[in-house]
Amino acid sequence: MKLYTYWRSQATFRVRIALNLKGLKREDVVINLDRGDQFKPGYRKENPQAVVPTLYDGDARLFQSVAILEYLEEKYPNPPILPKELLARAWVRGFALINVADSHPLIVPRIRNYLANVLKIDEAGRTAWIQHWLGAGLAAMEGLLAEKNPTGKFCHGDSPTVADICLVTQVTPAQLFKTDLAPYKRVMRIYEHCMTIPAFAEAHPRKQPDFEGH
Amino acid sequence: MKLYTYWRSQATFRVRIALNLKGLKREDVVINLDRGDQFKPGYRKENPQAVVPTLYDGDARLFQSVAILEYLEEKYPNPPILPKELLARAWVRGFALINVADSHPLIVPRIRNYLANVLKIDEAGRTAWIQHWLGAGLAAMEGLLAEKNPTGKFCHGDSPTVADICLVTQVTPAQLFKTDLAPYKRVMRIYEHCMTIPAFAEAHPRKQPDFEGH
Repeated sequence: MKLYTYWRSQATFRVRIALNLKGLKREDVVINLDRGDQFKPGYRKENPQAVVPTLYDGDARLFQSVAILEYLEEKYPNPPILPKELLARAWVRGFALINVADSHPLIVPRIRNYLANVLKIDEAGRTAWIQHWLGAGLAAMEGLLAEKNPTGKFCHGDSPTVADICLVTQVTPAQLFKTDLAPYKRVMRIYEHCMTIPAFAEAHPRKQPDFEGH
Repeated sequence: MKLYTYWRSQATFRVRIALNLKGLKREDVVINLDRGDQFKPGYRKENPQAVVPTLYDGDARLFQSVAILEYLEEKYPNPPILPKELLARAWVRGFALINVADSHPLIVPRIRNYLANVLKIDEAGRTAWIQHWLGAGLAAMEGLLAEKNPTGKFCHGDSPTVADICLVTQVTPAQLFKTDLAPYKRVMRIYEHCMTIPAFAEAHPRKQPDFEGH
């Protein structure tokens, strides 16, 4: 496996966790998003959207983190990261999409740049924006967990799923942008447990060789 | 099936198309997003995020459009809306996520309201924002289609998939917000073909009983 990655990319973080959980080895190619590596013609050919991650499984090129997670689950089913039962799968995917399709898209660098450069929103305004939308997603996750009241240490069942992966990538940027996490006790209990698992902990942005500190 | 819907919701539009393609009958419950029905306590119990769609399949409650599409595919596999082959499935899902996880989250009412009410962005600025992000997604889709160069009338293969569903829900708001569609010839060719198919055409926002004109 070859992964085009950047330490800070939450979408790539998801893929790193899934690869680790499934015991799949990878070679990293760093695309420095701060330096604009993603816009160079060479990488544009790999990824027309100029985003990370891109994953090669042999010659097969894959893009979009959730499509990659589904592919990994189908090609390398053990250990599973989706439950077997249909309604449980739907719940886990729905939970994950709160991060993937509602919160995360609002806080990525291209949005922060547009807010700053086009709309002339100052840093306080941009931070409030980020905290607002991350908080909305965290509240939705907390609400779903309160309703479901899982008995184990993960969002669903006794082993990590795509829901836990995307819970983690909701919390990590919230910590980075100093969102108040106190209201999200159920979310944070699962986050803390995930971070005791090497597959999660070693995928953390801070643990990447290209981490530059923050 | 019982679908909590609103005519203008693109996420619900996706689910309507999938239900139609699979020949599944539904009963609609209108949640008027303009009037704020989604925030009423009764609906909050159905959907803690206060968004549509919510789908009931018998007693089973489902949320998040992509999780619903995956559920429908698993429970009602014929006709399929995902290809069989793993890499094709990954491409179709990745293509769809350009709409679901990159473009659409940026233009929903809650974002437009925040831009207007909190950031005090005027209507011209909000329209430019919408056109910018819809255009970025359309360009990514056009790039992927140019690279893949599908020989049929759909994004992949000879029958509609989740990629076509999400191509349609990328184009429809772009039309509503008067985005220039001329650069996206491959996208528009597929869009026009999809709209000749009753499962797509009858799911269109304008065809819904609660459509109020625009």
